[in-house]
Parts: sequence; C-alpha cells; structure tokens
Amino acid sequence: MDKFFERAIEEAQKGLAEGGIPIGSVIAHEGKLLGAGHNKRIQQGSVVLHGEMDALENAGRQSAKVYQTSVLYTTLSPCPMCTGAILLYGIPKVVIGENQTFMGSEQLLRDQGVEVVVLNDPTCIQLMKDFIAAKPNLWNEDIGEP
Amino acid sequence: MDKFFERAIEEAQKGLAEGGIPIGSVIAHEGKLLGAGHNKRIQQGSVVLHGEMDALENAGRQSAKVYQTSVLYTTLSPCPMCTGAILLYGIPKVVIGENQTFMGSEQLLRDQGVEVVVLNDPTCIQLMKDFIAAKPNLWNEDIGEP
Repeated sequence: MDKFFERAIEEAQKGLAEGGIPIGSVIAHEGKLLGAGHNKRIQQGSVVLHGEMDALENAGRQSAKVYQTSVLYTTLSPCPMCTGAILLYGIPKVVIGENQTFMGSEQLLRDQGVEVVVLNDPTCIQLMKDFIAAKPNLWNEDIGEP
Repeated sequence: MDKFFERAIEEAQKGLAEGGIPIGSVIAHEGKLLGAGHNKRIQQGSVVLHGEMDALENAGRQSAKVYQTSVLYTTLSPCPMCTGAILLYGIPKVVIGENQTFMGSEQLLRDQGVEVVVLNDPTCIQLMKDFIAAKPNLWNEDIGEP
C-alpha cells in the first residue's frame, strides 16, 4: 500500500482514538510528506477542519507551484468544502480511500481537470460504516445534514 | 448600511490593521450575529482561514437547521474553498461586498440555488485595490496563483 495513503488511514484511526470523526488526509509533494491531519470537529470544536483541511493547514503556507505539483490523499470522498480547497490551490491529483459511505464532489473535481483515484479500500469503508452506525447525528452535523 | 455588512467591513479593516489580508465576514442567523471573522493567513499562518471560514469557525458547531436559515456577509466574492463551505452547510444567502478585484465562484453558488447579492461597495473595492497594489505576492498566495 502507498505509504501516504497508509498514513492517511493512520490519521483517521488517530482521530477515532481521540473520540473524533475517523477521516484522515495527507498532502505529499514530490514523494515527501508536506502535511498530515484528521477531522477535528470534536477535538477542537472545529467546523472547518475536515481531514483534508487539517492536512492543508498542517502543511502550512506553500507557493502555488508546490500545491500544483502535490497529491492529496484522503480516506473519504471530499465534501464540497474540501473539494473547493483542492480547486483553490490547484492540487492536480486526489487519491480517495472510499466513496461508498459518502459521495463527495468528485464530479466537480473531474470537471475541473483534477485526476481522481478511488480505491474503495475495505479498512476505510469499515471505519466509516462503524462510525456512522455508532454516531449518526455527529456524522450528519459534519456534512451539514439535518 | 446593513449592520452585519458593516461589521464584515470592520473585520476586514481589523485584519488590515493586524498586517493581514483585508477580507472580513459575518454569519448571521435570524437577525443575530452568529460569528464574525477575517482572513488569518498572516496572523496565524493559516491557509484555510479565509474571512468566510474564520466567521464560520468563530460561529462554532451549529445544526444544519441553523445554517440553512442563516445569511453570510463577506467583503469579497467567495473563492472556491469558501463557496464549498457555503454549499456544504447549505447557507441559502450570501451578501458580497464586491467582485471587481476578484471574481469567486458566484456562478456555482447560483447554480446550486444560493441567493447571491453583490453590492460592489466602494469601501470594499478600495480596501482590496490598495492591498493588491501593495502586496501582490501575498494576494496571489491567498488565491493559489503563481
């Protein structure tokens, strides 16, 4: 398994262990880890730090050139907000753990020329299935559903 | 002038006084201020806290019902990331200070049924014109441009 994708899963599991929502992400640039993170809704009461956003935040300020030659790895299909962040910074490739428990804005990414790879990894699917079954209200809050 | 829009401008001016990028936002729910914020790229080294995101973050965790009956005010046309956050949380109305110095994803908002009001307020335009002229590199970084 790709080491960055593996790290994204570890981030998701870390989030779960903290009592949070198990979604993790990594941004890598030319084979080096730039930033890793996980959803912080519970841990920090954050409504903007989805996994992808936390990875971007932890990567810190980067030039457009760096973003435009980076890859984002995320355990779950990116929601509209995270999709927008990917488009804002011009990240050209996104590797997605799964889109079975939640389908994000993958079509918008593709329409804008982003390469989207969906793995439908069993570990990622199980993490979300178990979490959604255990805490449906929290999950709905995270995706803006009633 | 609408008091929430006025407050968004005050947030932009506060950001400028801190040495930051002068973009401010407010989220209001049924006539009450829910959260206010401004771009924190310089102040916190943040790549996710655009004005709109900072206002959402300061509003804290809210139910879908609250977001879906709120209005977002922002001094500048929302970039793809902030547009995605508006869509994620289902905010039905966005009041935009100006779209002359930067055109965000207003069409995507409209396509998704969001009511978009553009004021093209002279104070907002001047704030961004002066800032972009003074610090073009910083502005390009904020919108992912080389």
